[in-house]
Amino acid sequence: MAGNSPNWHEHPIRVTYADTDKMGVVYYANYLRYMEVGRAEFMRSRGWTYREMEREGLVLPVVRAECDYRAPARYDDLLIVRTVLETVTRVRVVFRYEVYREGESEPLATGTTHHAFVSPDGKLKRASPEEVARLQASPSD
Amino acid sequence: MAGNSPNWHEHPIRVTYADTDKMGVVYYANYLRYMEVGRAEFMRSRGWTYREMEREGLVLPVVRAECDYRAPARYDDLLIVRTVLETVTRVRVVFRYEVYREGESEPLATGTTHHAFVSPDGKLKRASPEEVARLQASPSD
Amino acid sequence: MAGNSPNWHEHPIRVTYADTDKMGVVYYANYLRYMEVGRAEFMRSRGWTYREMEREGLVLPVVRAECDYRAPARYDDLLIVRTVLETVTRVRVVFRYEVYREGESEPLATGTTHHAFVSPDGKLKRASPEEVARLQASPSD
Amino acid sequence: MAGNSPNWHEHPIRVTYADTDKMGVVYYANYLRYMEVGRAEFMRSRGWTYREMEREGLVLPVVRAECDYRAPARYDDLLIVRTVLETVTRVRVVFRYEVYREGESEPLATGTTHHAFVSPDGKLKRASPEEVARLQASPSD
Repeated sequence: MAGNSPNWHEHPIRVTYADTDKMGVVYYANYLRYMEVGRAEFMRSRGWTYREMEREGLVLPVVRAECDYRAPARYDDLLIVRTVLETVTRVRVVFRYEVYREGESEPLATGTTHHAFVSPDGKLKRASPEEVARLQASPSD
Repeated sequence: MAGNSPNWHEHPIRVTYADTDKMGVVYYANYLRYMEVGRAEFMRSRGWTYREMEREGLVLPVVRAECDYRAPARYDDLLIVRTVLETVTRVRVVFRYEVYREGESEPLATGTTHHAFVSPDGKLKRASPEEVARLQASPSD
Repeated sequence: MAGNSPNWHEHPIRVTYADTDKMGVVYYANYLRYMEVGRAEFMRSRGWTYREMEREGLVLPVVRAECDYRAPARYDDLLIVRTVLETVTRVRVVFRYEVYREGESEPLATGTTHHAFVSPDGKLKRASPEEVARLQASPSD
Repeated sequence: MAGNSPNWHEHPIRVTYADTDKMGVVYYANYLRYMEVGRAEFMRSRGWTYREMEREGLVLPVVRAECDYRAPARYDDLLIVRTVLETVTRVRVVFRYEVYREGESEPLATGTTHHAFVSPDGKLKRASPEEVARLQASPSD
């Protein structure tokens, strides 16, 4: 796979009927759902879940998403979503994703999501250096 | 169609790719989304939108849903969701639905949803007689 | 939990942001997606995946679904979907489901789905006694 | 709005409960569903529906999607999806989208989707000059 550093987190997702469309493949918007799972599990592996971060007053809305679709995923495929924190500053986070079919070496899709730091009332805010450091932590499991 | 009284409200829905699954038909859970559209448009036609009702402190969570699937809907079909308020008391509301393909006389699906009256903090409450009357109003358009 | 026989199959599902709605709880139609996961994993545990069954010419469209919603599931909850084959004849299958929050003893939701046996071209068919027996098999793992 | 040429097609979409997430706003992946509606209605307005195009042997899978999220859409908002055909060659189509809240002058989201021409068996193909011309046609309604 493209990046083998320990910074990538891998998480399996099984394709359901609900995910497919009449072409027999995963509908394109559902890859953004898979990316959400990827970044939530990335954070959990670092010991700071997205739910905890929210409770501590930090929200990460998506301000930009992009996805390149290379080959289709199909019903009941076991996919591996690989996620890495590409950039984090005090005002912005970028995650990068690769979606593979299990056992394959070429990704079916790749993408990125860009996030702003926002307070629970919806205002832009600067993350503290400690919060940035927690996102950059090594996997704790 | 089964019921031609003015109490039924009709609303069109166009089937999208996103709604279909690998069998080429609308995925079964999406009929519950169509029912949501049906009851929201039913209420709008009575002059009291669901959004306004929420702002006035009344929420209607679904406590039971059922759906019978008789024939499949397909991509780009124009569906008609027919909705009627079957029962309303001070503690409970039941809506009934029929989903047709435009121009056809047999429904593709029929169903009901049962709702409790709840306050915004999630506690069961009794609707006032005025609130019950507003739900029973005739169409205002 | 309600039924502790080995005939129930349990499968974990993590609630995503995508699954929630503006009330902060899982949107009601998504429980039908969870039920799909439950019955697919039930079949996998019996050694006959739904994908294999389809390839062998047998399809199980839903003809009726019902769900009772007792308490809400929330973001990042780990849910357990319990599934059992309630009835199987040569023309009809009924699955029953219970959805729990991990570690709790009261289900958040319960439901059933009723299925017909259909051939890939969409015609009703009778399952063979062998096919019925495979659905009734004990878990193979 | 950004572009007022007749080449843009506008289509209304009402935000449902199903579209929202626990932040009370439209979940980011659902904008890709709205874009699908936008391009399907763009084609319908040109007199060649996506369903007809498929039946004639031409499929347009998404090979790349991007979306910039500027401000959130909320429950029951009436959105206007504006769609324009940005590029069409014999091998590739690009649509551009702007999503507005009705009556507002700044878009909530903008995006593009890139498509390849593919035959029903999934192979890349070149569209004929006539097919390219049909996509470039003026609105017929």
